Amino acid sequence: MKVEVCFSPALYPHYNDNNDKIVIVTDIFRASTTMCEAFKNGVKAIISVAGIEEAKAYKAKGFKVGAERNVKKCDFADFGNAPSDYTEEAVKGQEIVFTTTNGTQAIDVAYSSASHLLIGAFSNLSAVVDFCQKQGKDVLILCAGWQNRFNIEDTLFAGAIVEKLFLNHAYNIESDAARIALSMWKEAKSDVVAYVSKSEHAGRLIQNGLSESIPYCLQIDTLNIVPQFDVSSKKICLK
Amino acid sequence: MKVEVCFSPALYPHYNDNNDKIVIVTDIFRASTTMCEAFKNGVKAIISVAGIEEAKAYKAKGFKVGAERNVKKCDFADFGNAPSDYTEEAVKGQEIVFTTTNGTQAIDVAYSSASHLLIGAFSNLSAVVDFCQKQGKDVLILCAGWQNRFNIEDTLFAGAIVEKLFLNHAYNIESDAARIALSMWKEAKSDVVAYVSKSEHAGRLIQNGLSESIPYCLQIDTLNIVPQFDVSSKKICLK
Repeated sequence: MKVEVCFSPALYPHYNDNNDKIVIVTDIFRASTTMCEAFKNGVKAIISVAGIEEAKAYKAKGFKVGAERNVKKCDFADFGNAPSDYTEEAVKGQEIVFTTTNGTQAIDVAYSSASHLLIGAFSNLSAVVDFCQKQGKDVLILCAGWQNRFNIEDTLFAGAIVEKLFLNHAYNIESDAARIALSMWKEAKSDVVAYVSKSEHAGRLIQNGLSESIPYCLQIDTLNIVPQFDVSSKKICLK
Repeated sequence: MKVEVCFSPALYPHYNDNNDKIVIVTDIFRASTTMCEAFKNGVKAIISVAGIEEAKAYKAKGFKVGAERNVKKCDFADFGNAPSDYTEEAVKGQEIVFTTTNGTQAIDVAYSSASHLLIGAFSNLSAVVDFCQKQGKDVLILCAGWQNRFNIEDTLFAGAIVEKLFLNHAYNIESDAARIALSMWKEAKSDVVAYVSKSEHAGRLIQNGLSESIPYCLQIDTLNIVPQFDVSSKKICLK
């Protein structure tokens, strides 16, 4: 089996050589971390939508909606894109709708060409790796990036997955992207917060008064859950 | 001024925020290195075309044609994509046509939205940097990659440009892509051949009996020329 890394949803067509692969969508700051948090707090399902208008339509039908663009919570929404918005009180037992600048776009480009689409964050890193190893399929980590541009934090997460699949499960690393993600992760892992503090998106979070999200979203293995996209219902849930 | 790096022609629209910038197209293995070699050997102009059919049409009109797909020289062509094909005897004083798997595609996506489009290789690294510094404009290094996928060797070249513009000319590094390219270059520069030997494309060249191209294309500052794309004639030439 091989593990591959794609740095942007816009590059996905060029990495999509196998419809039987597992795709791990990651958007560390913050959509994938936030979705994992919502599942920790008992959300029943997340309806991921790429567009604001679709999210508003769900809101009009009575759904609670999480919506973010350019780091900020959208005015019409119940929640933004901070993990701390999705408390047990707010989400337990509910189906909620979610749209973000990058993460939900990445889900949209990939779900139809994967055997499984997983939501990966540092918080559920080992759980995701264990799931992949049990399935025994090729793995592609799809970095949400920032408006289709490469970003550091998603690539580091990809490197951490590559390292575990390579070292513990004998996956092959065939591509330059996977090699560089691994190399970055090896350099960063002794102090991930310090490494990521130089990134574009850390700057954006700090400028918007959201610096507490940075260490929070970089905590490793705090959850043992694997959110998955269900193609028939088009919802993300725990199976 | 800022220096920016784009890892793939497919990502170019997401990095194209300024039409007054200098774009440096690079395809280290081997198109940009080969074009520089042809200019060293006196070629008058290179007509870069993205498609095979267009190249064949030029061939039918009597032009000499360099054409490569997937590392191999195309049957109908006079030259492949090896620097050593473009000798003084073969090209001096001539206008030739050139199409390759990646490099000429990168030129095609960028030339209409740049104040200058330069051909950059390790062989003309400092000459390209000097040109940029004299113009005093933002710089974007566009990596040709491999079939729109990220590659190591083009990114290292980008990192080398970023380092020089940052250290010697006070350019700003604002993006994660430019930061990572610089970080890779710092790690690689003491032994670039060893670093690149792990890359996908080095493997492809070795499999095709072209391993001598690897160190050749990684030689730094052997030429003091700056090939440029001329928009009105759609030819690459030395100005």
